Amino acid sequence: MERPYRIGVLGGTGAQGSGLALRLALAGHELVIGSRDGARAASAAAQLSARAGRTIAGSENRAAAAAAEIVILTVPYAVQRATVEHVLDQLHGKVLVDSTVPLVPPKVGTVALPEGGSAVAAIQRLAGEKVRVVSAFQNVSAQHLGELDHEVDCDVLVCGDNRAACDLVIALCADMSMRALHAGSLANSAAAEALTSVLITINRRYKVAGAGIRITGLPGSGARGG
Amino acid sequence: MERPYRIGVLGGTGAQGSGLALRLALAGHELVIGSRDGARAASAAAQLSARAGRTIAGSENRAAAAAAEIVILTVPYAVQRATVEHVLDQLHGKVLVDSTVPLVPPKVGTVALPEGGSAVAAIQRLAGEKVRVVSAFQNVSAQHLGELDHEVDCDVLVCGDNRAACDLVIALCADMSMRALHAGSLANSAAAEALTSVLITINRRYKVAGAGIRITGLPGSGARGG
Repeated sequence: MERPYRIGVLGGTGAQGSGLALRLALAGHELVIGSRDGARAASAAAQLSARAGRTIAGSENRAAAAAAEIVILTVPYAVQRATVEHVLDQLHGKVLVDSTVPLVPPKVGTVALPEGGSAVAAIQRLAGEKVRVVSAFQNVSAQHLGELDHEVDCDVLVCGDNRAACDLVIALCADMSMRALHAGSLANSAAAEALTSVLITINRRYKVAGAGIRITGLPGSGARGG
Repeated sequence: MERPYRIGVLGGTGAQGSGLALRLALAGHELVIGSRDGARAASAAAQLSARAGRTIAGSENRAAAAAAEIVILTVPYAVQRATVEHVLDQLHGKVLVDSTVPLVPPKVGTVALPEGGSAVAAIQRLAGEKVRVVSAFQNVSAQHLGELDHEVDCDVLVCGDNRAACDLVIALCADMSMRALHAGSLANSAAAEALTSVLITINRRYKVAGAGIRITGLPGSGARGG
């Protein structure tokens, strides 16, 4: 870790956001989780703080974005765009890490990418040049994230059009003992987004709880941390 | 292997098709490789036969499709549709295994899925109900396929709307010592197709030759063979 960052996790009361917040807090970063409901965020933050043995703050999404240097988005696809619009002016100059998967209930095991291919790439178009959007964490099982006693057996595909922002996210993953890989431009987020429906299908078909992916063919340590 | 199948590999003079033909022939199946140029197919087949120590036939694509019970398509995206149209009436009642990746040169490292999401799903719409289309092999490195002295360190994502056809393809993969997984309906082929551009990006970025994927979180043997 280069230095502790102030990191906001919007939708941080959910399973995936909570897991990321916990692991980042344990790595020494300063965390604030956001929710549409500030009181709910505060309550969830108190519980997470107890688990982490460190203070994790909680507030309404917009305040969480304002307080953070790096913002991670972990909300359902249905409210992805509205959440970003709600906090947008607080994101200028910052890195927005979007983990959104465009699942279309009830058929979440079927790939249904939006027009244009990637739900995250659409957020970069919405947010404009002042926000550096990075795609990550689509394939990481929320259940495994929350089990702090073991490492997550899943690579993180990191896509983005700004190389330094991708490097930063890859470093944050390393802080959480997760291997992350440069997976190309933001358009390539479509691969990670689509893969989640495949993993959901595999979970059901093979009766497992948290299938993930590993990239093979890389030297043992050369890929870690980019 | 349940029994030897007669398998045609269209575009079988290319690296990926040749690798699949070799491995399937070594597993005991009867192979015929197809090409637009029958003489070229015959010449390539003679070379493959020498490598395999078994007879692999070669002929023009249409004759190869006619001779086969199972047809594997390994042609560039630019000629995918035309190739299927050319052989279509020879596919009725058969399984068509399509490995096409919708790469758009020169930016092959950038995901560029066609409208509708999946290039393979589009072929099922073209071919109609009489042909059972299965998507497979998009993520398997042609180089590794051709290196017969080692197993391919990559899972095969198998997508299709016909369960028995998918089971058949998974069994063929097992014959080649490759683990294949039911990855959902044909729409989910978009994930495998998109992932190939990610793997190309990773090959370049990390200076490796044949990155692949493994699904994690599965019991050791439970997933093999479906």
